[in-house]
Amino acid sequence: MKITDVNLTPIAMKDPPLRNIHGVHQPYALRTVLQVHTDEGLTGLGETYGDLAILNALRKVAPRLTGLDVLDLNGLERIIRETLGASAGPATHGLVGEASDEKTISTVLSAFEIPCWDLQGKALGRPVVDLLGGKVRDAVPYSGYLFFKPAAHTPLPDYPTDAWGEAMDAEGIVAQARAMVDGWGFKSLKLKGGVLPPQDEADAILALRDEFPNHPLRLDPNAGWTVESSIAVGKKLDGVLEYLEDPTGGIDGMAAVARSVSMPLATNMCVTEFAHVKPAVLVDAVQVILSDHHFWGGLRRSRELAGICRTFGIGLSMHSNSHLGISLAAMTHLAGATPELTYDCDTHYPYLVEDVVQKGVLSFKDGAVKVPDGPGLGVELDLDALARLAEQYEKCGFDTRDDITPMRAVQPDWDPVIPRW
Amino acid sequence: MKITDVNLTPIAMKDPPLRNIHGVHQPYALRTVLQVHTDEGLTGLGETYGDLAILNALRKVAPRLTGLDVLDLNGLERIIRETLGASAGPATHGLVGEASDEKTISTVLSAFEIPCWDLQGKALGRPVVDLLGGKVRDAVPYSGYLFFKPAAHTPLPDYPTDAWGEAMDAEGIVAQARAMVDGWGFKSLKLKGGVLPPQDEADAILALRDEFPNHPLRLDPNAGWTVESSIAVGKKLDGVLEYLEDPTGGIDGMAAVARSVSMPLATNMCVTEFAHVKPAVLVDAVQVILSDHHFWGGLRRSRELAGICRTFGIGLSMHSNSHLGISLAAMTHLAGATPELTYDCDTHYPYLVEDVVQKGVLSFKDGAVKVPDGPGLGVELDLDALARLAEQYEKCGFDTRDDITPMRAVQPDWDPVIPRW
Repeated sequence: MKITDVNLTPIAMKDPPLRNIHGVHQPYALRTVLQVHTDEGLTGLGETYGDLAILNALRKVAPRLTGLDVLDLNGLERIIRETLGASAGPATHGLVGEASDEKTISTVLSAFEIPCWDLQGKALGRPVVDLLGGKVRDAVPYSGYLFFKPAAHTPLPDYPTDAWGEAMDAEGIVAQARAMVDGWGFKSLKLKGGVLPPQDEADAILALRDEFPNHPLRLDPNAGWTVESSIAVGKKLDGVLEYLEDPTGGIDGMAAVARSVSMPLATNMCVTEFAHVKPAVLVDAVQVILSDHHFWGGLRRSRELAGICRTFGIGLSMHSNSHLGISLAAMTHLAGATPELTYDCDTHYPYLVEDVVQKGVLSFKDGAVKVPDGPGLGVELDLDALARLAEQYEKCGFDTRDDITPMRAVQPDWDPVIPRW
Repeated sequence: MKITDVNLTPIAMKDPPLRNIHGVHQPYALRTVLQVHTDEGLTGLGETYGDLAILNALRKVAPRLTGLDVLDLNGLERIIRETLGASAGPATHGLVGEASDEKTISTVLSAFEIPCWDLQGKALGRPVVDLLGGKVRDAVPYSGYLFFKPAAHTPLPDYPTDAWGEAMDAEGIVAQARAMVDGWGFKSLKLKGGVLPPQDEADAILALRDEFPNHPLRLDPNAGWTVESSIAVGKKLDGVLEYLEDPTGGIDGMAAVARSVSMPLATNMCVTEFAHVKPAVLVDAVQVILSDHHFWGGLRRSRELAGICRTFGIGLSMHSNSHLGISLAAMTHLAGATPELTYDCDTHYPYLVEDVVQKGVLSFKDGAVKVPDGPGLGVELDLDALARLAEQYEKCGFDTRDDITPMRAVQPDWDPVIPRW
């Protein structure tokens, strides 16, 4: 089955004003939806970042894929490397670590690899999870992802108010967690930190612990703290956190924290490419890696990462950026076939108010998503929704994720310095 | 497609008196041929060791596989672990490192995984190499595997003489290499050492270098030397060897040698399970790992090993035991889809005089085997040959590989001590 044509559709989806170390989410999150058509009339779906630099890289590669067999993932990588060259250019967002040529290549590889898996599954009449070696779990548990946030985007008076309300202190976070747990059934909770001073975020975690005594808890300040602050928070939260995620930046900084705190340290910032793994292993910098097929090179590479984690005694969890249902399906198939994944996966899905996949397949029960059992990814495009979000992209006024500018609209002297505390 | 039945056929194939650190090959090498039948009428082929301990483990697992989907490799592993338990028992030969429960499980997993890949390919009408991500090379280069050997098995006057003649010194090895290179086209040469004193084996390598100035050369004494002897030979062969394979035993010993010699050290003895990788990486004990799908857990695990080697800057080569064409086909598909494999693979195939696969698919040209392009492994059983070799198994008089006993038949005081020098 050979590729005949590729459609790339950049879309913008409404996104609440979620806070992080860089600032605040824009009112729209950008994604690119991929439709890969073949000579057998089947279409494979994919989803990746919508930032212009990635979109431009995808646009360079797409016409070169005509004639490629959908099983030929080695050929896909070869074409991408030939097309983008050794200087593919930085294209990813700082919240997933430093951008690099290799990360751009891995991101583009993943973007096209997912539709190939979808097509392989559709051709065989089997779900992607089966092609990855078969289910090791029927449903994939996700964590409730908590964010500090104002009630509304500012200044955007006509923008619809989101359902989550303000959460700028421990009380607000506990209320948000209650809504997540009661509405979605999550069994783990993750707090995006790096927003309030570390002690206040530690207090928010302790308030969550009081309210949810049995939910594993995680805190992720996106490298917003110094080594000293990280150690202080780590000691304060001794016995409370399942893991502490990227308290500080860099492999050496993480290793210094790891030597002084009791809980595992997790990362999706200092180990985000295969080239980072060995330096991290040699100093035992991280005890959990958050995989993300979007920038680790797709499902095949993610399985390699799982094998590395198993081999080196490193835990495996899963990272999330704002995403649609195509990505949720891919994440769920991957996690469904990955025994090494022993932590509940991250997802931004509860914040999504408009999806491009047809309803009915992806739903949360007890915090978990059943692995779709239809052929391929098991999800279908809602073409009307896609057109609506594509139009929203054209009108939204930006083409690249930028959490700093909307923060400065509220706080003109905003300085996104890292580490901040 | 579900498994309905499994046939296990132990066979014995004639094998020349190849010498090694343990002694000498028996007149017959033992293998097990697997035929896995399915509800769609397709049969998948596999091949592994024939030793009774492995055969018994295969026999325990086989009846438990009825109903298993051939895509469900995770389910296959689960069944094997449930069946054999945590104490599967040691079952593999010392020349591939220490036997262990985990290595037995990996070996049994591989034995059944290969027929599943064969079946997946046959169902899709595609060669296994395509299922592994597609060809990165059209033909897989192998190395010419040189052995010290007497002219004939002793005492077996009625046993047919092999075509290779005696090779018990440098001159004999050079003549053997000439036959390998002229007859098979090999572009690399590997000498099985651990037979003569190290200085004599180094001299044999230097004689090969004189005769074949452009052929990469390897020497493998199977951990027969002390650290000191290994360093002495390593210094003498500075600039001559492509790699030195298992000069001494153990990760610490190899690390000590690695610190003192210029060439990469390779292993299929001290890093033979995933559990060995981290300790070896932490002390930089080996620079090349010889994969072997038979005991690394099959094609999927071998791909994980390749990813580990790429990630940690370790070279990847491929190990061989005496094998038939089913294994050669599997090795060739795997190598054909593995970009990380940058060394010519080992094979004992030139010593094989009776195969169970039909002729015509597997042939050496310029030292390389073209990746079969038929569905699955692309090879078919010769049922007459299988029956003949099965009968030979019944008559050969032993059920487990043992290189010591036939050595003592020639040299009653033979002491297989390791290290010897």
